[in-house]
Amino acid sequence: MPAPAPSPAPLLDALLGPADLRKLTRDELTQLAGEIRLRIKEVVSAHGGHLASNLGTVELSIALHRVFDFSSDRLLWDVGHQAYPHKLLTGRAARFHTNRQQGGVSGFPDPKESPFDLAKVGHSSTAISTGVGVAEGYRRSEHRRATVVVIGDGALTGGMAYEGLINAGQLKSDLIVVLNDNGQFIDAPTGSMHLHLDRIRTGSMYQHLRKRFLETLKKLPAGPQIEKLAEQLELAAHKAISPGYIFEDLGFRYFGPVDGHDLALTEEALQNVARLKGPILLHVMTRKGGGWQPAVADPLKYHGPKGFDVSSGVFQVKPPARTYSTVFAETLAAIANEDDKTVAITAAMPSGTALRQFGQAHPERMFDVGICEQHSFAFAQGLAIAGARPFLAHYSTFAQRGYDQLFQEVCLSRDLGIVITLDRAGLVGEDGETHHGIYDIAWSRCLPGLVLMAPRDGAQLDAMLRWSHAQRQLPGRPAGYCIRYPKDEVPQVDWGVQPAPLALGKAEILRRGDGNLMVWAYGASVKVCHDAIADLGEHGRGITLVDARFAKPLDGALLAELAAEHGEILTVEDHVLPGGFGSVVAEEIADRGLRLRLHRAGIRDELVPHASREQQLAAHGIDRAGVAKRIRAILGIGTTVIPFTRTA
Amino acid sequence: MPAPAPSPAPLLDALLGPADLRKLTRDELTQLAGEIRLRIKEVVSAHGGHLASNLGTVELSIALHRVFDFSSDRLLWDVGHQAYPHKLLTGRAARFHTNRQQGGVSGFPDPKESPFDLAKVGHSSTAISTGVGVAEGYRRSEHRRATVVVIGDGALTGGMAYEGLINAGQLKSDLIVVLNDNGQFIDAPTGSMHLHLDRIRTGSMYQHLRKRFLETLKKLPAGPQIEKLAEQLELAAHKAISPGYIFEDLGFRYFGPVDGHDLALTEEALQNVARLKGPILLHVMTRKGGGWQPAVADPLKYHGPKGFDVSSGVFQVKPPARTYSTVFAETLAAIANEDDKTVAITAAMPSGTALRQFGQAHPERMFDVGICEQHSFAFAQGLAIAGARPFLAHYSTFAQRGYDQLFQEVCLSRDLGIVITLDRAGLVGEDGETHHGIYDIAWSRCLPGLVLMAPRDGAQLDAMLRWSHAQRQLPGRPAGYCIRYPKDEVPQVDWGVQPAPLALGKAEILRRGDGNLMVWAYGASVKVCHDAIADLGEHGRGITLVDARFAKPLDGALLAELAAEHGEILTVEDHVLPGGFGSVVAEEIADRGLRLRLHRAGIRDELVPHASREQQLAAHGIDRAGVAKRIRAILGIGTTVIPFTRTA
Repeated sequence: MPAPAPSPAPLLDALLGPADLRKLTRDELTQLAGEIRLRIKEVVSAHGGHLASNLGTVELSIALHRVFDFSSDRLLWDVGHQAYPHKLLTGRAARFHTNRQQGGVSGFPDPKESPFDLAKVGHSSTAISTGVGVAEGYRRSEHRRATVVVIGDGALTGGMAYEGLINAGQLKSDLIVVLNDNGQFIDAPTGSMHLHLDRIRTGSMYQHLRKRFLETLKKLPAGPQIEKLAEQLELAAHKAISPGYIFEDLGFRYFGPVDGHDLALTEEALQNVARLKGPILLHVMTRKGGGWQPAVADPLKYHGPKGFDVSSGVFQVKPPARTYSTVFAETLAAIANEDDKTVAITAAMPSGTALRQFGQAHPERMFDVGICEQHSFAFAQGLAIAGARPFLAHYSTFAQRGYDQLFQEVCLSRDLGIVITLDRAGLVGEDGETHHGIYDIAWSRCLPGLVLMAPRDGAQLDAMLRWSHAQRQLPGRPAGYCIRYPKDEVPQVDWGVQPAPLALGKAEILRRGDGNLMVWAYGASVKVCHDAIADLGEHGRGITLVDARFAKPLDGALLAELAAEHGEILTVEDHVLPGGFGSVVAEEIADRGLRLRLHRAGIRDELVPHASREQQLAAHGIDRAGVAKRIRAILGIGTTVIPFTRTA
Repeated sequence: MPAPAPSPAPLLDALLGPADLRKLTRDELTQLAGEIRLRIKEVVSAHGGHLASNLGTVELSIALHRVFDFSSDRLLWDVGHQAYPHKLLTGRAARFHTNRQQGGVSGFPDPKESPFDLAKVGHSSTAISTGVGVAEGYRRSEHRRATVVVIGDGALTGGMAYEGLINAGQLKSDLIVVLNDNGQFIDAPTGSMHLHLDRIRTGSMYQHLRKRFLETLKKLPAGPQIEKLAEQLELAAHKAISPGYIFEDLGFRYFGPVDGHDLALTEEALQNVARLKGPILLHVMTRKGGGWQPAVADPLKYHGPKGFDVSSGVFQVKPPARTYSTVFAETLAAIANEDDKTVAITAAMPSGTALRQFGQAHPERMFDVGICEQHSFAFAQGLAIAGARPFLAHYSTFAQRGYDQLFQEVCLSRDLGIVITLDRAGLVGEDGETHHGIYDIAWSRCLPGLVLMAPRDGAQLDAMLRWSHAQRQLPGRPAGYCIRYPKDEVPQVDWGVQPAPLALGKAEILRRGDGNLMVWAYGASVKVCHDAIADLGEHGRGITLVDARFAKPLDGALLAELAAEHGEILTVEDHVLPGGFGSVVAEEIADRGLRLRLHRAGIRDELVPHASREQQLAAHGIDRAGVAKRIRAILGIGTTVIPFTRTA
């Protein structure tokens, strides 16, 4: 739906660039902050996107652009789901209503869009490392540039952030890390680092140390001097032990905490650290949803909302969609009710993967390890070694972050039979380039010991989960089962066949035609092909349609059998063409010496920018119309008349 | 060469299993430690392997097996390059002389070999995470099992170790982490965590805190009490601040440091922590090479040595080999001398990648970031953003650890033109399953914006490095260049052609035959094919041989041109078949609709155990004899007579 015309924002719309910010009065800045919040709410309500995190960085963004000059200085946003205010301040206010839409501005920082966006991001915990590189690259340059990284407390749980901190400390980089501490992740706070930050926030760490200090004092020879000095000693201890000592120990100078919604204070703190050299950590406290009560009260609900009233926050009522994620959660709950060795793991995505409800029903058997994908695979391995039966729920794109652990901890361990679900596989729509799950067939099928599956609908996902879980209780099980499914509702289709029970590496023929062409589709593309063939009317009658079900092992026997009756094959997949499902079929044709002319439909080898999922599928010819067109081309049929006349 | 008969080791050879250790006297244990050291030295001298790290864990391994019963308790070795003593103590002393040889024991822990080896390892920083999973899996089991993880201080720099520590703290796992602190990595110590451990070791952290404490005290109202109490205050501060507070802050109880070469003390410490619940960190100090002076004095030299005298440590003199790594280092030095924007990055592998010498010549332009592969890619990105021209030198297998950063920080940044060398690509011989670099074509070619290359010899590697470096200074450069080469000496071959200058995606015809078969080889396989064709004598005359040079973009135009004259094509690669170079060719044949019968030679989709590289290549038919055999089969020639008679 087109966005309603944005409300007037006189100060925001008059800004030519961040330099103009320095001309505004305090009162105008307050007004500007309000305009930014309203604009963000309006656009997110219309098109979705990140809300609460962006409301939290309004004053911080203004302060950063007032204190630094990022046409020369350098600013990096970790994850980038808090950079809307920054975008509005750097010349994109007029276009911001196109956020996340085809041809519009991206929901994440993007260098193609603005010189103020240094790096394309979307995955967490990387910006400190990039910042260390930037600072190091400028170390010997003629004029000084500040390098500033903004990173959330949630992203600090990722081990890579720690690698970046360590290296900055080692190199003594001129790097300012702004810790944007909003006290929680996308979901609930996790991890003992969080406890550490919590202690700083509440002062309880100091209480903790003080207690230990005084307990030790009590063991010293008693005396009136000791009693009298107690208060002074407390003060001394407090000063001697900086609240940020964990960062100081990594080589950083710690400053803060500062109230990140107090613009003047935040500016002052930034000005103070801007003059310093070496690694600096400035701890800024913000609230997700800051400045808007509904989002402050329930930041999770307003993490990535759509279709709410921008003053009340009340959502339009939509019938709950039945997505692949929902089916996963339901089946997992059913399996767990029958088998108490079933456990589930997520890396900071309990809502997205729909594991939240499972965790409420089985808190002892649900593990949210934080933004620690590397850890998640080894943790699953350990659980399996100890006899548990883990389901590891990832987004396809985030699973990439644990690739080597999938290799060593899952594949080299061989027969652990870990079930890995790859949600958001395929094109993901509005989140765009950083979030597509379109590489997983390629990176997983080269590793030994994995079974790769994709369901064509909810019933098949249910069947695949149950089948994998049953299989892994048998001897000779593989290292792991990867089940990929898209960010989509499950289709309701009458396939016209009784679903064949799952068996390892067995495809399923959904329709058998007497023509020369067969179509092999994988996962969500099966319905696309089903519909496309229906659209072809009479011309579709001769086409054979196969749901491959397994990309590894491929049903090579069926391929050979059908090759005797078909001369041409079209593969269709929601994945890039290099190394994808069509590539599996190409290998099988070669290795079996089959006489088949192969056509491959899939995502071209290029970046796929943000748009709706349907637009992206269409752009790569793997939507219903695109597949129909491709089939017509293969069959040598004119494209204009057929679908309407239904005659030959 | 066959190992010389091992020297007698009466106590070691009489051990039936770790339970026997508890029957030995202190004197016998001392003798046993000596026997273990001698056995390790003898076997490593004969077959290579890790020496210094294993000499350092002799007493620790004995202590662990005396205090715990790992038939019920669980023991995990991080990396596993320090587990030889453990192997010798768990029933593998009699077979240990077969270490790293085909059919022999593995150089790393391997569950296929012993129930005392819980997980196959070889990559660093993962064992804490596995241990958290194991501890969690046993949490509700009927009888208590201790879970013990041994991890080195170097591995603690990897962010994943930190993820594991955090999660253990969060879950309050019953986990004992033994920090095997030998004060250095494979190469030099790196990182500020190391400084932290250093401070613990030397007491300087305490000095540091004391200084800050006393400075603060000086600012208090002066008085004689203060002066008099200074000494007592120091004591109090010392006790109040545990030397391991950084671990305590992550939820661990810290114990140590303990001298890990004092068996009785180490046992006592382990006994003390064995009784405790919750996350425990026991800090054990060992020396790499411990117990053998030559290795203590130069642990780097004795990290992975071969062919030394087991008493003096003197090495047999061997002519220095000219390897691909050496060529890389030489060319890089030449490039850096001409271009001061050239920088080089390694993740704790300066010796293996041959960057050490570069670092000595250009200390300001060489960065060793520690075992932080994730960080390394983002760090390279940052350097490139700031105008530097980074060469990022990885082992193929370890580059997997930064896969998502290759995706986001390199590929999505698009035109940074980062040059990534993948050393140890292909089969690596004795290190075995965990170390092969046989998946990189598959996982890199699915990502957008990368150019993939492999040289057939040293001259081509030199050319590819120079060409990439020149290309990236031009507009329209790609995101990155990946250049893969094996753990091998560069071949000296007269190819019989004048090497064609490199051009993007251009292959090179090395010989043009008039027969029906063409062979396309990639990287090190080019020489294999060259030799195999020579061995075929007359039968080889008609064969066309192409050095593909690029796997992405493939030279599809040349493929199509040659398809007009050839009906069959054989691809040969030192990489797994799924998704590899042959798969690229299969896709191109399909997409161009070429009439070519494709045969693929490469590594089958299975684990490749340790053996010599030549044995491994032979086992998969991608050595000289294997390729010749494959060609004969394609040509329909008998296999027995031809190579000797040279007649048709």
